[in-house]
Amino acid sequence: MDYNKLAYSAKTASFKMATLNEALRNNALKAISKALQENKELIFKENADDMTKAISDNLAQPIINRLKFDEHKLQDILNGIHSLLSLPDPLFRKLLVRELDEGLTLEKTTCPIGVIGVIFESRPDALIQISTLCIKSGNCSILKGGSEAAKTNKVLFEIIKSAGLSAGLPDNFITLVETRAGIDELIKCHESIDLLIPRGSNAFVQHIMANSKIPVMGHADGICHIFVDKDADIKKAVRIIADAKTQYVAACNTVETLLVHQDIAEEFLPVLQDTLKLKHVLIKGCDDTRKIISCEPSTEEDFKTEYLDYILCIKLVSHIDDAIKHINKYGSHHTDCIVTENKASVDQFMNFVDSAGVYQNCSTRFADGFRYGFGAEVGISTSKLHARGPVGLDGLVTYKYKLFGDGHIVSDYAEGKKSFHFKDK
Amino acid sequence: MDYNKLAYSAKTASFKMATLNEALRNNALKAISKALQENKELIFKENADDMTKAISDNLAQPIINRLKFDEHKLQDILNGIHSLLSLPDPLFRKLLVRELDEGLTLEKTTCPIGVIGVIFESRPDALIQISTLCIKSGNCSILKGGSEAAKTNKVLFEIIKSAGLSAGLPDNFITLVETRAGIDELIKCHESIDLLIPRGSNAFVQHIMANSKIPVMGHADGICHIFVDKDADIKKAVRIIADAKTQYVAACNTVETLLVHQDIAEEFLPVLQDTLKLKHVLIKGCDDTRKIISCEPSTEEDFKTEYLDYILCIKLVSHIDDAIKHINKYGSHHTDCIVTENKASVDQFMNFVDSAGVYQNCSTRFADGFRYGFGAEVGISTSKLHARGPVGLDGLVTYKYKLFGDGHIVSDYAEGKKSFHFKDK
Repeated sequence: MDYNKLAYSAKTASFKMATLNEALRNNALKAISKALQENKELIFKENADDMTKAISDNLAQPIINRLKFDEHKLQDILNGIHSLLSLPDPLFRKLLVRELDEGLTLEKTTCPIGVIGVIFESRPDALIQISTLCIKSGNCSILKGGSEAAKTNKVLFEIIKSAGLSAGLPDNFITLVETRAGIDELIKCHESIDLLIPRGSNAFVQHIMANSKIPVMGHADGICHIFVDKDADIKKAVRIIADAKTQYVAACNTVETLLVHQDIAEEFLPVLQDTLKLKHVLIKGCDDTRKIISCEPSTEEDFKTEYLDYILCIKLVSHIDDAIKHINKYGSHHTDCIVTENKASVDQFMNFVDSAGVYQNCSTRFADGFRYGFGAEVGISTSKLHARGPVGLDGLVTYKYKLFGDGHIVSDYAEGKKSFHFKDK
Repeated sequence: MDYNKLAYSAKTASFKMATLNEALRNNALKAISKALQENKELIFKENADDMTKAISDNLAQPIINRLKFDEHKLQDILNGIHSLLSLPDPLFRKLLVRELDEGLTLEKTTCPIGVIGVIFESRPDALIQISTLCIKSGNCSILKGGSEAAKTNKVLFEIIKSAGLSAGLPDNFITLVETRAGIDELIKCHESIDLLIPRGSNAFVQHIMANSKIPVMGHADGICHIFVDKDADIKKAVRIIADAKTQYVAACNTVETLLVHQDIAEEFLPVLQDTLKLKHVLIKGCDDTRKIISCEPSTEEDFKTEYLDYILCIKLVSHIDDAIKHINKYGSHHTDCIVTENKASVDQFMNFVDSAGVYQNCSTRFADGFRYGFGAEVGISTSKLHARGPVGLDGLVTYKYKLFGDGHIVSDYAEGKKSFHFKDK
């Protein structure tokens, strides 16, 4: 397979895709939704084959759970497409209209990024979410899913492609890459692919970043913190920590390190320990923590570890400044929370903590495109440029400057014959 | 010199810098403006030393012109700081305020990027422009200027640093790197530096991009096009092309390739040639062009060349589609213009040309932060993510999500006990 040619075909399609009006893109989403419903038995059948193979290959239960595509998942997906339909068009928005001088008008207008390459894990529903987000935002997508879901992905891709084409989307608006080897070829196509979104392990994301000239949006680690301030409501804190640690332990937005103000630690830690015991969470604590509750000792290595497991590291701090310093040093700039009733501490925490999400009194698990009301997300970004945090439609568009003149030349302004008046409209 | 330590000091300062209110940042700009005026004789004296050395080193005249820092340049700079003062604060802007559910409110708020490393050419005024843009946007800057301007840069740096500190900016809000070797050390400091802005030759920018994990904002080439459509006003076209080619020939936004619709070529090309002769522009043309006017022959290599000189490449096309295809294939996605009176052609050109700037009937030389009313610019970006085109204050900020809750946990929503209502405020 010639991946350069494949990527170039997507690039060519992207120029057409960028000009389609909202009605056509929304109609394509409706056609896809209808086609998924009409072909659901076929999807379930292909998925059953993937499931059978996964079980006979002895894949881990969490992978098998994620692989499953049933009536329930289908309904979630259809609801997702429905909510995407109701979101305002991210394209052709005028971010700025400025008359620079008489007859010379500058417009800053949103437009698609172009071709987005997404490499995702075993969930076949991700394929639908990503491709529909790309359609709504006028981007062409090149998708590589987990090999466990090969048959499900293939049938979903064919249904989406066929429904999209029938609704008027351009040839090659969506492309499926079916081999793992394809990834290393794709990431070389920097002339045609505008953005890569790898979802997967830290090592995998780092590999992509180190080996491609294409900009990468994604997150390497998710080391999230909760800081229990001296002015925290203890009940609230325990409830939030239990949720942030155990509601879904394998997610990037679960809490890994808990920082506790020493002034509240004696009262707080035993209550927390009782609750976490019921949830089967192993506590690893610093020396000061271990003077108050009995637990495993922690080392500096723990501060850098994304457990993705029923393990919580606890460290006492003597001041909010120390908590902030710890988070900025060891955190992954993903999502960090302060539990406190003190408004000044909230402001300080939110201003000084250098993360995509800074929370007060709620679970770090809220860091998610659906929960932010973005309809869905293509991923969560821990880089600071372009898109930060959960990335929905907004992160899939860029802008261009349109300048409308009538024979205007720069030398008139350089020589002082004319001058700019900058009137925003 | 320990560059890791130097970058880490800037990082530490950046957390404080991010929390300063608008009044303090503006007062610092005022103090800097005042200090530059008060110390102008010292600046001119140091600049005279740099100039003497440049002349005795036989540097090219354009470099010597750019190096000069006189009363005129100082006034330009002071005007620039003045206009920066009048621009609205780019920080703490709420891009979104959304109640996710009762008592759970999401805010998307602008904040600085952090530490910006800028490597710039011989113009010492660039040091002032960049550092003041960084101050206004709450960023710390690490600056490396051209070695020809070493003494001027040093004194400017010291004046800005001292005035900034006296106005309350944090230690290390600005850092000067004085050796070329420092660049290769700096670009390794990806844990502390958030963004690199290299200004200089294509080869230099590519070198930085290939050797650093830090995101790079900038542009490699500036291959700008003008397309003279069949419905062009010929007088207007000639005037625009003469300006775009010759108003300042060494800039990235000068036109390099001219595309001409074949239906207008016979009437248009001789008129253009007469004007360009007076401006001493050498024309290189395709075979079809050479059937109409006599000129040097061009090759495909010309389409990929940024001349930065009094040379213009001309190619005839038989359709607007061909012009668009040529631009998307050979252009550098910088700034491209259509000259036409036909509205449908304008729309088509602007929608399909994949460049940061798409113009109608005006000179490509308008692609500039000052001319767009941004006060100044740190550079022009040809990458598609984050910031595109001339980059002023908007490109120097990012955002964070603040989520305010009152004990809210995700399991309540996952289990259907509560649901989101997404009310934008």
